[in-house]
Amino acid sequence: MSRRIRLTVQYDGSAYHGWQFQPSGTTIQGVLQDCIYQVTGEQVRVLGAGRTDAHVHAVEQIAAFDADSSLDIGVIKRALNARLPSDVRVVNIEEVAADFHPRYSAKGKRYVYLIANMRDVPVFVRRYVWRVKEPLGLEEMRTASIHLLGLHDFSSFRAAGCASRHPLRTIREIAIERLCEAPFLFGGLEGEFVRITVEADAFLRHMVRTIVGTLVEVGKGNLHPEAVRDILERKERRFAGPTAPPQGLFLKKIFY
Amino acid sequence: MSRRIRLTVQYDGSAYHGWQFQPSGTTIQGVLQDCIYQVTGEQVRVLGAGRTDAHVHAVEQIAAFDADSSLDIGVIKRALNARLPSDVRVVNIEEVAADFHPRYSAKGKRYVYLIANMRDVPVFVRRYVWRVKEPLGLEEMRTASIHLLGLHDFSSFRAAGCASRHPLRTIREIAIERLCEAPFLFGGLEGEFVRITVEADAFLRHMVRTIVGTLVEVGKGNLHPEAVRDILERKERRFAGPTAPPQGLFLKKIFY
Repeated sequence: MSRRIRLTVQYDGSAYHGWQFQPSGTTIQGVLQDCIYQVTGEQVRVLGAGRTDAHVHAVEQIAAFDADSSLDIGVIKRALNARLPSDVRVVNIEEVAADFHPRYSAKGKRYVYLIANMRDVPVFVRRYVWRVKEPLGLEEMRTASIHLLGLHDFSSFRAAGCASRHPLRTIREIAIERLCEAPFLFGGLEGEFVRITVEADAFLRHMVRTIVGTLVEVGKGNLHPEAVRDILERKERRFAGPTAPPQGLFLKKIFY
Repeated sequence: MSRRIRLTVQYDGSAYHGWQFQPSGTTIQGVLQDCIYQVTGEQVRVLGAGRTDAHVHAVEQIAAFDADSSLDIGVIKRALNARLPSDVRVVNIEEVAADFHPRYSAKGKRYVYLIANMRDVPVFVRRYVWRVKEPLGLEEMRTASIHLLGLHDFSSFRAAGCASRHPLRTIREIAIERLCEAPFLFGGLEGEFVRITVEADAFLRHMVRTIVGTLVEVGKGNLHPEAVRDILERKERRFAGPTAPPQGLFLKKIFY
């Protein structure tokens, strides 16, 4: 009797070629499938909610697979964590209905993007931020972001090779915050961090990174906040800003 | 005309066999000397303020070397950072008097130790914390720490092989704090972090890590806070608690 098992997976994507299995190159899906095979003896396909790119991280990725194994799920969790590399952790495991699909069942996703708005990035966060040394105008970025809220055709923020059937997405929230509190555990680092949170029903390929790259152009003063409305309306990728680098991006939460 | 050049160096010690040069194994001193040679063509000995152990980090290590090179120090800083691996950064450079010695001129040092007091450590901080899953009693730890303040013979907190001439040290401050604010840049991690700050005129080998290991025994309830006074008075390493692992330790600041 097969069971569908849902995993909440956290990973530091620095050393990976992204979520999706590749014949060459280590991926999160690949190491999960390998470890599940070691634990259950079953070759499964692990479904993921979001296909994160190379070097993108996940605070809470949702994955699922079908197992014939009768092992207790608590035992499976501990056995997986004992075998997984230290940069991938199963933080939760549960049995779910057979029709649960991490991606198709999802009602929304939240991503977080971290910018180190400073000249020198502390070595301890180098894998988790995009360094932008020019001072960013957050008010202008917030004004620009308002144009992106709601249902739009996001073709201008969609990378080539995007497999989505259509470019319509609904952005529910964009929050742009300066983190002035001690920005890392041991405190006392100089400089400021900017955190951009984007929540939508779903995302196109590189959509968050292109939004961040465009908002940073606004923050630097290279682009007027109102220009973002025009960029949306033109529906062509070349009008938006550059794609922000992957290491600042975190898949934060999937909503069901 | 030789100049003495002082560097403020920040490093993630995860991949290193500590500060001090070794014929085998990569060290911070070794990579600095290699890069200085590449930049100035001079084989120098880089002096450091603190000989951090393998996997120990530095927010601000102070180092110095003598250069015959007439290169501008700003140029030297940029050239070093262009050649250093991404986990070692020169954050400041200046010319100092010829009698400046990073270690002998130091009037004090501050270390910070980070504990993840939780069952599952977020992957993003795994290189920078000691995981202690039992809930820690911070009040008991603070009561215990008071016995360590001031001038004492710290033989009980001194590792074998310590090269110091005598075991007398003056601890000026021990702060034990629970970090309840969002403990990492992207916020929302569950669990709590404990930060232990220790400032002294100087330290013996493994002194901070042995103090932390002993205070954690107090925090777990395995040791009475008053026992720390007895441990000090016995002046033998075997009476103190275990040595806390290196990856939670940060050399935070050197005072001159």
